[in-house]
Amino acid sequence: METVAIFGTGLIGASFGLALKRAGFEGRILGVSSPSALEAALARGAVDEAAGFEEAARRADLVFLSQTISRILDTIGRLGPLLRPGALVTDAGSTKGRICAQARECLPSGSFLGGHPMAGKDTRGAAVAEAELFEGRTWILTPDDPAKFETPAARELVGWVEKVGAVPVVMTPEEHDRVVAFTSHLPQLLSTALAATLAAHLEKPEHLLAAGPGLLDMTRLAGSAYELWHDILETNPEAIGLAMDAGMETLARLRAYLLSQETERTFETGANLAARLRR
Amino acid sequence: METVAIFGTGLIGASFGLALKRAGFEGRILGVSSPSALEAALARGAVDEAAGFEEAARRADLVFLSQTISRILDTIGRLGPLLRPGALVTDAGSTKGRICAQARECLPSGSFLGGHPMAGKDTRGAAVAEAELFEGRTWILTPDDPAKFETPAARELVGWVEKVGAVPVVMTPEEHDRVVAFTSHLPQLLSTALAATLAAHLEKPEHLLAAGPGLLDMTRLAGSAYELWHDILETNPEAIGLAMDAGMETLARLRAYLLSQETERTFETGANLAARLRR
Repeated sequence: METVAIFGTGLIGASFGLALKRAGFEGRILGVSSPSALEAALARGAVDEAAGFEEAARRADLVFLSQTISRILDTIGRLGPLLRPGALVTDAGSTKGRICAQARECLPSGSFLGGHPMAGKDTRGAAVAEAELFEGRTWILTPDDPAKFETPAARELVGWVEKVGAVPVVMTPEEHDRVVAFTSHLPQLLSTALAATLAAHLEKPEHLLAAGPGLLDMTRLAGSAYELWHDILETNPEAIGLAMDAGMETLARLRAYLLSQETERTFETGANLAARLRR
Repeated sequence: METVAIFGTGLIGASFGLALKRAGFEGRILGVSSPSALEAALARGAVDEAAGFEEAARRADLVFLSQTISRILDTIGRLGPLLRPGALVTDAGSTKGRICAQARECLPSGSFLGGHPMAGKDTRGAAVAEAELFEGRTWILTPDDPAKFETPAARELVGWVEKVGAVPVVMTPEEHDRVVAFTSHLPQLLSTALAATLAAHLEKPEHLLAAGPGLLDMTRLAGSAYELWHDILETNPEAIGLAMDAGMETLARLRAYLLSQETERTFETGANLAARLRR
């Protein structure tokens, strides 16, 4: 793999460029993005040159799509006729079912391997990109069928995922979407709901002063951009609905049995899970 | 104020001792706690000497109660006959209504000023105490009536609260309990509910790998000790119930209108509140 094209040079795309270089990638990195995002990525040294959509698609051995989900869907729809033989397309979209279905429909067989690096930051853009962003983080890969995971280009991608410090985990697109509805989408909606509830129910502005470090943790995700979440909600509504139902059921049970041993058990179960997540 | 007695030398009590010393307090600090907690606090230099309950109560100009809420209620019940004239009792309990009522009943008028420093850590105990724990944090004070805030001993306490770097905020006990039901108790229950929901609904242990930094933020509180929360839930159930109802209503509305502009507005409201909290 000699040429990588990064479509969308925001936090994730620019961090991937920086991480590839730090991991020893010596080929060329092309960036396809808005003028301001490209300028920031070039300034950080995350991409070597700005390129147009068609040029980048024709030159790349690896196409890395780190745009919003709706943009990724659009890009996949246009890439098919442009790709080099043997080129691989991957992405960093937060839902996988729709993206993988679009790739099945629009790209040559075996040329797409969906991905989702579980990394992020409070702030967006290439200016805050980091070569270390993926270190120790899970990087989910979602081959349609196991064979697609064994092509030379796919194996090379997995090698780079490991070299940038991430831990590859393989799931089907549908399994991914069910799982992240619980591990990512439900946490976001709980954080947003908590912050919106406080906005509606605190009696005075100075009551915001009654906030400790725990409330700051619990409202960090609430600062996320709706632009990104619109696409996530739109492309995974069934799994998100089920995860929300499950979360609301747990809350309703806590509410109903607040002073009982049932609550002690729920605290224990929750504390155990929190500890396992940190292992 | 020459002698301070800290009842309960865990994280908060030992941090208060360290913070007082760093802020220039040159008097004596007595510790009343379990043998192991006292040993840890003495090793950290957070207290100068271990003392028995009665001795500490008789010698102190300021009694600082940083025990669990049920212990604080018990201690207040026993302190009355022992206190020096002019001594002030304050506390760091997470709910204030029951504690202040107990103080009204059991302590001489004007000798109690309830408090709640909005500070904490993931881990407990004097071993992780910090002189800087209260820096920049709100320290809520809950006088029964404004006059109690103007005694010489109360003014001296407020002075030390400021010298340890905290920001005093005055509320009635009832207002405190309503507000922290939203800013502290609801976040805890959401974190616990999220973690317990994941424990019940993730299909495979390896699905925990699909966790990004956001899930770690959202499950940090879930690691809290139930021992502390039992007392909080038991002494503030009405306000907590209302806060949970409000939170569940926001969630149910998000669930019902997931793909509508209502959700965009909820995200905007939440993001605004999260930004205000960080100012």
